[in-house]
Amino acid sequence: MIIREREPLNLEFPFDQLDGFITPTDLFYIRSHFPAPELNSTSYELRVEGAVERPFSLSLDELRAMPHETVTATLECAGNSRVFLVPQEQGAQWELGAVGNAEWTGVRLSTLLARVGLKPNVCEIVLEGADRGEPKEKPKPPQAISFSRSVPLPKALQPEVLVAYRMNEQELSRDHGFPVRAIVPGHYGMASVKWLTRIEAVETPFSGYWQTSEYAYWDDMNCNPVRRPLSEMMLKSAIARPSMYELVPQNQTYSIFGAAWCGSGNLKAVEVSTDSGETWSSAELIDPVQPFAWRRWRHQWKTPSRPGRHILLSRAWDEKGNGQPLQHNPRHGSYLIHHAVPIHVFVE
Amino acid sequence: MIIREREPLNLEFPFDQLDGFITPTDLFYIRSHFPAPELNSTSYELRVEGAVERPFSLSLDELRAMPHETVTATLECAGNSRVFLVPQEQGAQWELGAVGNAEWTGVRLSTLLARVGLKPNVCEIVLEGADRGEPKEKPKPPQAISFSRSVPLPKALQPEVLVAYRMNEQELSRDHGFPVRAIVPGHYGMASVKWLTRIEAVETPFSGYWQTSEYAYWDDMNCNPVRRPLSEMMLKSAIARPSMYELVPQNQTYSIFGAAWCGSGNLKAVEVSTDSGETWSSAELIDPVQPFAWRRWRHQWKTPSRPGRHILLSRAWDEKGNGQPLQHNPRHGSYLIHHAVPIHVFVE
Repeated sequence: MIIREREPLNLEFPFDQLDGFITPTDLFYIRSHFPAPELNSTSYELRVEGAVERPFSLSLDELRAMPHETVTATLECAGNSRVFLVPQEQGAQWELGAVGNAEWTGVRLSTLLARVGLKPNVCEIVLEGADRGEPKEKPKPPQAISFSRSVPLPKALQPEVLVAYRMNEQELSRDHGFPVRAIVPGHYGMASVKWLTRIEAVETPFSGYWQTSEYAYWDDMNCNPVRRPLSEMMLKSAIARPSMYELVPQNQTYSIFGAAWCGSGNLKAVEVSTDSGETWSSAELIDPVQPFAWRRWRHQWKTPSRPGRHILLSRAWDEKGNGQPLQHNPRHGSYLIHHAVPIHVFVE
Repeated sequence: MIIREREPLNLEFPFDQLDGFITPTDLFYIRSHFPAPELNSTSYELRVEGAVERPFSLSLDELRAMPHETVTATLECAGNSRVFLVPQEQGAQWELGAVGNAEWTGVRLSTLLARVGLKPNVCEIVLEGADRGEPKEKPKPPQAISFSRSVPLPKALQPEVLVAYRMNEQELSRDHGFPVRAIVPGHYGMASVKWLTRIEAVETPFSGYWQTSEYAYWDDMNCNPVRRPLSEMMLKSAIARPSMYELVPQNQTYSIFGAAWCGSGNLKAVEVSTDSGETWSSAELIDPVQPFAWRRWRHQWKTPSRPGRHILLSRAWDEKGNGQPLQHNPRHGSYLIHHAVPIHVFVE
């Protein structure tokens, strides 16, 4: 794993080691904002409250005793690929590997919301973690805060949204949110709040730090930009191999290999260019369509017979005909970096 | 006038020159975010649109031909008194004079909203000025923006809220928003958008730059701070005379003089302390209660017979029994500075 920050722990999966459909837990990226809290499985308590009829708390045993589901979901950090921005933007300098695909097991959030009884004007569900500290970006609150994010109610009620206590058939590790985390498939990783201890139904949009100062972008409304929280993952593909500046043999068949994903809709195709985007060929999709999970892909490249530098690109398309952009949208600032990243390689 | 910034123009009224109930226009503070646009009275157009049934535009002549009202309202900059914060906060270092009281004449905003026909889910009215530029604070939009603020619909419908074209019985000067500005009595000055050219009804809360990055504060909701736009002026009094570090004669009667105001409710009393807050006496209120307008006050002080330094304080009370605080609330950051400011004076 590549260390992006020691304390709090931020580790990146070396994306050129992409192999199976499921990312093993020890290779799954870790994004933390504050030191990982030490929660105890015996004393753990999840409160469900706010604008509700019947607030309640659950122990870990009570949660585990409820009906559970398993969902395969790709989580990507909203700042993944930030190192490719020019000029450099503040924040962890992720390359391609702040993304992974895992199996998550837990109770549907909608089950807990049905039990608690939402009041009619509830518009969002706030997910609060037990991790606390003083955040870095402006504007900064004048106190320590927890990591809290809201999910719009329509998404919170979807069957894929889980209050999860297992990852890849094991209990969660401490850095992945032991004992309980949210999983919001289709949304950037910041929505899948770790160390989840409180679920609060609210009747006005939640404008906490992590959806105004950080994990937010400027949306252009009639030339009048408004600050909006990030939510759905953007359509994206990434080349795992060859890696940047790799030497590739001449006059051979090289299997360009990568993955592609999107937050909503279905990923339909991936195209690859080995000539800086002049021409494109369809890649072979390895995995079938499965909502919220990435699809690995490969493309056999006849490498040139003469030495030189070549620029590889991949580009994803969804079933609605949307294509991955070729340039970063400056409106997205240091997030939503989903343009086709040029991979420079050298033919020997 | 005290110059706080040359370009854009930011001028402060020297508060120790406070005299009449109405602040003359040439002594009224000027707060600008971008260079003042040059609008032409002939080509001026005010658009009223958004989530409405019948969008329309008005010329200046058409606006002037509509029924009009005159409202006396105190406007205070949300950063007034910032120079008294320790440690120093970023922003214009206003002393006490980014406040003034004037007569404003124009058409009720509610009249325009009735004519345009609001859709049922409208929650806020966005007021957009013609002034544009690149703002300074983070997070910064990636483009030039206009000065735009929203007013919650219930306030926008109040009879005191005007689309104004006269100030103190004259047409608006360029720096005060010629030819048309909003006047939102009771709210900090940032709500009274100058060079008003567009009024937009919106169905979701407007999270523009001037109510998230600037002119916003952290409100503590269940220890989970949320970013909220500033709105109502806080209860405040200020001492105009003596001024800071003034020499006052010994053993005489000195008339301590100032003004006091609040954004909602009515100001009921002002107390003065001449001994650093140990004891307090009632000041005499000069002006009667009038919603949205300040009340001047005075207090006869028998100055001490021996030389020395003295600390004067004034404290306002409203009819609900709320008193002006003695300390700045750090949650309010560099805004809402309404604590009792100690005025140090020297008895000769």
